[in-house]
Amino acid sequence: MVRFGILGCGRIGQVHANSIQRITNARLVAVADVSIEAARACGDRFGVQTRDVSDIVSATDIDAVIIATSTNTHYEMIDLAANGRKAIFCEKPIDLSSDKVRVCIKTVEDAGVPFMTAFNQRFDPHFGAIQRRIADGEIGDVETVSIVSRDPGPPPVSYLKGSGGLFRDMMIHDLDMARFVLGEEPTRVFAVGSTLIDPAIAEVGDVDTAAVILTTASGRICQISNSRRTTYGYDKRLEVHGSKGMLRAANVLENSVESATSRGFTVAKAEAFFLERFGAAYLAELQHFVEAVLAGQKPKPDAQDGLRAQLIADAATKSRAEARPVEIPA
Amino acid sequence: MVRFGILGCGRIGQVHANSIQRITNARLVAVADVSIEAARACGDRFGVQTRDVSDIVSATDIDAVIIATSTNTHYEMIDLAANGRKAIFCEKPIDLSSDKVRVCIKTVEDAGVPFMTAFNQRFDPHFGAIQRRIADGEIGDVETVSIVSRDPGPPPVSYLKGSGGLFRDMMIHDLDMARFVLGEEPTRVFAVGSTLIDPAIAEVGDVDTAAVILTTASGRICQISNSRRTTYGYDKRLEVHGSKGMLRAANVLENSVESATSRGFTVAKAEAFFLERFGAAYLAELQHFVEAVLAGQKPKPDAQDGLRAQLIADAATKSRAEARPVEIPA
Amino acid sequence: MVRFGILGCGRIGQVHANSIQRITNARLVAVADVSIEAARACGDRFGVQTRDVSDIVSATDIDAVIIATSTNTHYEMIDLAANGRKAIFCEKPIDLSSDKVRVCIKTVEDAGVPFMTAFNQRFDPHFGAIQRRIADGEIGDVETVSIVSRDPGPPPVSYLKGSGGLFRDMMIHDLDMARFVLGEEPTRVFAVGSTLIDPAIAEVGDVDTAAVILTTASGRICQISNSRRTTYGYDKRLEVHGSKGMLRAANVLENSVESATSRGFTVAKAEAFFLERFGAAYLAELQHFVEAVLAGQKPKPDAQDGLRAQLIADAATKSRAEARPVEIPA
Amino acid sequence: MVRFGILGCGRIGQVHANSIQRITNARLVAVADVSIEAARACGDRFGVQTRDVSDIVSATDIDAVIIATSTNTHYEMIDLAANGRKAIFCEKPIDLSSDKVRVCIKTVEDAGVPFMTAFNQRFDPHFGAIQRRIADGEIGDVETVSIVSRDPGPPPVSYLKGSGGLFRDMMIHDLDMARFVLGEEPTRVFAVGSTLIDPAIAEVGDVDTAAVILTTASGRICQISNSRRTTYGYDKRLEVHGSKGMLRAANVLENSVESATSRGFTVAKAEAFFLERFGAAYLAELQHFVEAVLAGQKPKPDAQDGLRAQLIADAATKSRAEARPVEIPA
Repeated sequence: MVRFGILGCGRIGQVHANSIQRITNARLVAVADVSIEAARACGDRFGVQTRDVSDIVSATDIDAVIIATSTNTHYEMIDLAANGRKAIFCEKPIDLSSDKVRVCIKTVEDAGVPFMTAFNQRFDPHFGAIQRRIADGEIGDVETVSIVSRDPGPPPVSYLKGSGGLFRDMMIHDLDMARFVLGEEPTRVFAVGSTLIDPAIAEVGDVDTAAVILTTASGRICQISNSRRTTYGYDKRLEVHGSKGMLRAANVLENSVESATSRGFTVAKAEAFFLERFGAAYLAELQHFVEAVLAGQKPKPDAQDGLRAQLIADAATKSRAEARPVEIPA
Repeated sequence: MVRFGILGCGRIGQVHANSIQRITNARLVAVADVSIEAARACGDRFGVQTRDVSDIVSATDIDAVIIATSTNTHYEMIDLAANGRKAIFCEKPIDLSSDKVRVCIKTVEDAGVPFMTAFNQRFDPHFGAIQRRIADGEIGDVETVSIVSRDPGPPPVSYLKGSGGLFRDMMIHDLDMARFVLGEEPTRVFAVGSTLIDPAIAEVGDVDTAAVILTTASGRICQISNSRRTTYGYDKRLEVHGSKGMLRAANVLENSVESATSRGFTVAKAEAFFLERFGAAYLAELQHFVEAVLAGQKPKPDAQDGLRAQLIADAATKSRAEARPVEIPA
Repeated sequence: MVRFGILGCGRIGQVHANSIQRITNARLVAVADVSIEAARACGDRFGVQTRDVSDIVSATDIDAVIIATSTNTHYEMIDLAANGRKAIFCEKPIDLSSDKVRVCIKTVEDAGVPFMTAFNQRFDPHFGAIQRRIADGEIGDVETVSIVSRDPGPPPVSYLKGSGGLFRDMMIHDLDMARFVLGEEPTRVFAVGSTLIDPAIAEVGDVDTAAVILTTASGRICQISNSRRTTYGYDKRLEVHGSKGMLRAANVLENSVESATSRGFTVAKAEAFFLERFGAAYLAELQHFVEAVLAGQKPKPDAQDGLRAQLIADAATKSRAEARPVEIPA
Repeated sequence: MVRFGILGCGRIGQVHANSIQRITNARLVAVADVSIEAARACGDRFGVQTRDVSDIVSATDIDAVIIATSTNTHYEMIDLAANGRKAIFCEKPIDLSSDKVRVCIKTVEDAGVPFMTAFNQRFDPHFGAIQRRIADGEIGDVETVSIVSRDPGPPPVSYLKGSGGLFRDMMIHDLDMARFVLGEEPTRVFAVGSTLIDPAIAEVGDVDTAAVILTTASGRICQISNSRRTTYGYDKRLEVHGSKGMLRAANVLENSVESATSRGFTVAKAEAFFLERFGAAYLAELQHFVEAVLAGQKPKPDAQDGLRAQLIADAATKSRAEARPVEIPA
């Protein structure tokens, strides 16, 4: 049994609390939040105690913490949890500064505690199946990868200000996915970005539409397309070409109903957004963490994976700013 | 809060126990089974007491029972539960004898307890959406309905012996679905059936492949195709044509991954069988029951719906035996 | 080189004239029509002579005739052409009376001339591929067949009066297709029909919506659904289930463009009607005829195929009228 | 009537000869080829005379020429044809040197003859429909474009040597398509390329796998992916996102047959290659040329379109060589 404390009772914290309830061998013990009201509401909803962060990280009846606080506090939370010898499941990104991520990695290694970065999309059954089938050799050597992510709408500009920009906030999932399926580390990135949806996004230095080309040492190529706008739900696709064939994951639609009228044949929109689309992935990633902790194995993706994706996002941000391809640090 | 006792701890009983755990305002209190071991295993799994049937139907801490025992005991269970003033959620079919179903209806009406027949497929999100969109007038007046159900394989012949035959055991879901979407009662049925999979099925008087035409008073036509064999998962489709267009539910596939090779483009098989395909429907039907009981409303489909489907299945069985169309009793 | 004369310059006659122009080893020599104006317009369009029927059937510069006159004249045209020792390509149906079809068969056999019944749908690349793949054993033994044909709208009631009714006029193509893919002759038919589109169709004794079940000696089952109405183009589908799998032909759409909006994902309507949908089939059937004639082989489908489909259509018509299953003459 | 002479009797020359036969108001008069045998074979096939190029460009019974000779001779053929006052339909690319293309433009303008560059993919019914629907405002303002072209296999290395490289030889179609649907001229290009299929391709300085990002002044983004290898036919897709929705053209498959087995549901491969995929487009582009010439209007795409695509291909080639984004000349 892995006994959990959750730090941060926002939307994602509650998603994880819900997952814990559905996992055999996992139990939620306590929750904490900087807002006492939020903590209480969450504790009531899941029938568990509210405690201070300091109590949770030092508690003897808690084995692992989920860090779901705001990004700028992850650094401190990791430090506290490592000191408390807790297994750590940390929301992405670990930190917007890759230097601080490096410090976190050392902290966790020194403490010798399990650490998992929550790139949940690796646990999506569709994307996961593609990665496994590539690994099984079904399409031969990977040649090109194409990833499309289009959100149904942009977040508030107030949020974007502190988000680190589209490449670190939104595309980071795709950058990790590229590493997951490419079979080689990307070594160079070229990025472009535009503000086509809302001029206010440009005013805070961000973009709402972007494209990236990643290349690897052997010449594999990955193209990523991001936009903060669709009218047809959350557009999330992955396509991988290899020497023997292609594998791709289509959008998951709201239902399987098709209509036929004088307009043609129409099927449902894509699932509304990531919480709907990745429901199964949120559960599966935590199941993996629980299984790894119980088996004494290192969970994956780990802190290094968090760092690698962050470094690519940093390089993409720089590429767009300087209008040139940028090498990704090894 | 609706407090449940479950009668019958087999596969379906456990599906319902699992659903109860996921429904706010529902709680499982106790389970019973003719096999004490099965009851204990189920009670342990869900953390609830094992009690005798007689204790459950008379318990003051239980509001509703789920009847998931073998079909030939439903009659008695309904009687006991009605006497105990429990709300009743009864697996289909209510009984293989429509006369006994009529007695059950009277028993339940006299007792004044809520009663729901578990035609879970009405609560499938895809089929349910079709029914609602028809009701909203999207395709005008219904003209024709086509239903395909193909199981991945036949059940054991020993099971088939007591099943009442394909029309009562398997097609009954489709017959209820036909009523659900046709917008009119079927008045006549013509049925054919063959044994193409296993001669042993013919030896017990049953068929493994069948087709039915239902017609209504105004001339609407429903075609149903059933088979006990596929190689590609559970094949379950519904298609409705109206004066203004068509609505259909395609098979739900195991995942959204598509591959392309020299053989062409391939997507996953259909979900393996009904437990996978109708997972959401099992939950939704019980949610509806709980909401209806709490609101003091009659749940739907009710005992009359159970009877109507049974009468059509009886008529289809007779049609096949006598090789002629048979009128369905009003 | 096969030198053609065309009898009947209506829509279908012109389709065949156009096909001849595209076939190496075929040449159109002359056309005839009961309307001199129609014949001249057609002759001008294709740059060939207008001649009388009697001149065409006796011409020494003509090897084969295409009979595309109105159905009630086929009998006479076949007689004339057989006497003139012409190879005969005859539009379906050969005649509405199966007795007269039998006479035609004898006439043609006595004359020893090649005869082909124009069931063009056998030459559709999609349906043809299904038949070949069944013959290659890809899905094992055929178990069930499902055919859907829905026209975009009913023909004029004036046309329906002399058409022989839906089963002989429209479903006859599906009845031939059933024979083509079932691998066994249907032995019994049950048919229902309704008038859901236009009451005037009932007044002339016809139906606009129909369903049929065919069964074979070994228990194979074929379901056919016909309607004279869709809003989304010509709906034409074939699905065959066997012991090892399923083969089906989806509708052919107007184009491959898909749009995504807040209504969902939409693709084009089906091809408008049979001339668009079966364009390739019209060409391929005549190519087959030319090749057979030049090779001295019997073209297929032949007059017996025409008769068999007619006998099933007759039996279906009777089944609907008498509301009972009807045996199909051997 | 437009009377044609064809210069160059290779594969594409014959495609155009075949199209002419199917176009009302067009007639093929003569063909020429540097190989007398090739010219004769072609002339025989289409039943027309063989003449010298000089005779064709000066003939009084010829109105228009199709230039389908090898690329390095286009420059001279255009000069001859312009002097002969022929309308010119010229295969792409006009020339591998954009300077020489500029000379051709002047030659044609000075002569005042109609000139069309054969970017046939604009006339594909699917891609054409997308462009029209964008122009009609269906998806609002264009934001991003994605184009995928994957050939079934690389051409001979001997051919690649003189091809100008992948960007000029293969991607040029996609670069023109980008201009066709973007609604704005691309101003900057970034290109990467690899040799993943055959090292011999690298030895002649070319690549077999490539990706490009194009951007416009207002920030619209186009991504293109090219490869010389697939196992599943010719992969040719276009996807355009706008402020109100998305339009895309899926691959055109060899047929509409789907099978279902234990491997899942499988549909046919994509059409084998461009001749199959763009059959309708080859006919439609020449129909447009004929209509424009007869109406005294300028055909489109014109020589400027040919130049624009060439300039982007040049810039892409340079971008890859120098590993930096390159401005596209205005």
